[in-house]
Amino acid sequence: MRTDISTATWKEGLGTGLTTDVVIFTIRDERLSVLLVERSREPFAGVWALPGGFLAGGEALDDGASRVLEEKTGVSGLYLEQLYTFGEPGRDPRGRVVSVAYYALVPYNRLDDMAALPAGRVAWCPVDALPELAFDHAGIVGMAHQRLAAKLEYSTIALQFMPERFTLSELQSVYETILGEPLDKRNFRKRFRTLNCIEETGEMFRAGKHRPAKLFRMKQPGRVQIIK
Amino acid sequence: MRTDISTATWKEGLGTGLTTDVVIFTIRDERLSVLLVERSREPFAGVWALPGGFLAGGEALDDGASRVLEEKTGVSGLYLEQLYTFGEPGRDPRGRVVSVAYYALVPYNRLDDMAALPAGRVAWCPVDALPELAFDHAGIVGMAHQRLAAKLEYSTIALQFMPERFTLSELQSVYETILGEPLDKRNFRKRFRTLNCIEETGEMFRAGKHRPAKLFRMKQPGRVQIIK
Repeated sequence: MRTDISTATWKEGLGTGLTTDVVIFTIRDERLSVLLVERSREPFAGVWALPGGFLAGGEALDDGASRVLEEKTGVSGLYLEQLYTFGEPGRDPRGRVVSVAYYALVPYNRLDDMAALPAGRVAWCPVDALPELAFDHAGIVGMAHQRLAAKLEYSTIALQFMPERFTLSELQSVYETILGEPLDKRNFRKRFRTLNCIEETGEMFRAGKHRPAKLFRMKQPGRVQIIK
Repeated sequence: MRTDISTATWKEGLGTGLTTDVVIFTIRDERLSVLLVERSREPFAGVWALPGGFLAGGEALDDGASRVLEEKTGVSGLYLEQLYTFGEPGRDPRGRVVSVAYYALVPYNRLDDMAALPAGRVAWCPVDALPELAFDHAGIVGMAHQRLAAKLEYSTIALQFMPERFTLSELQSVYETILGEPLDKRNFRKRFRTLNCIEETGEMFRAGKHRPAKLFRMKQPGRVQIIK
């Protein structure tokens, strides 16, 4: 089945560098934040960028993004989704480089597992206070944020930020952080109750002198449910 | 700024063929249909496939998809959106070929403009009766259909299938065709009236002995509105 690939059209498509860049989100100090790495090499040496890299020869796109994610966070089993492919000519000064961008969500309690981040300068940065970013990465973060906010409206994706057990107030706070606006407590609770995607653990959480709050967990961890 | 690209990682990313494939949808005889072309060359010679091709050296992804779309339909100004990028190893017997897939919508009245389709076998085929397709194109059509159906729920994308003037019954019929289920007429009309994306033309349409129906048009043709 392998045929001669020396046709003009085929040659034109060759010579493309294929990378993946991953927007890794978490909630830190009640701010939506992304993981950035400082580039050690040209182009853009010393400039902050999204974690990413060239795909290996026989590597599936999802596997490449998953590899970058695990290398940078040291955590596996995170939610990861393809975002969009960026291929504007001139986006990379080295030549034609197309980037298949992904985004991933890290539960905020897993940040402690990431204490031993890999060598090099790596930092969490709030999306509303980004430094100058290399390549077209600022645009990639912007699109990922938009997708995430849109997906809050019609899916249960926000649960991917939560620790194993959480209160409804904590969940609402995640929504408010990403959307950048307060939500009505009663409506929020009613909606989540009817979604049938979380359940009571039977345990209570008490913070200071507040009334104890019920602790919930996801019914199907890892699964993102689409809301009609 | 152009640097030496002879690093190992860069080389690994090289040698990738980059294509674009476009799922071109329309509504024909009340069925959601896609445009297929019969491949004249190996691999998969004689097998039906999505219209597509290799991207030219300095071509932006959107421009490549737009070029394929215009070449195959002879129509310009159609709605076109990036769908997903497919890069499973082995998806193309020629080697590593990554396809950035798009989908496009053709208003059903524009099908007449397409009478003079380009050379080669080209055909509209209902998505629920596809022949065997080359490569992973069946999966690409499936994902595009899913995206389109999802987007009906939270956007005004269906209007991109409509002619310049249309009745609300015609619009409802497009929804029902894509979703594969009947909708409540009263709710449908109420929803579209409040969306403020269409307006009365002041003209009426009378078919046979039916009551004349109001003709509507889009307020901002080409614009797809997101519904919160």
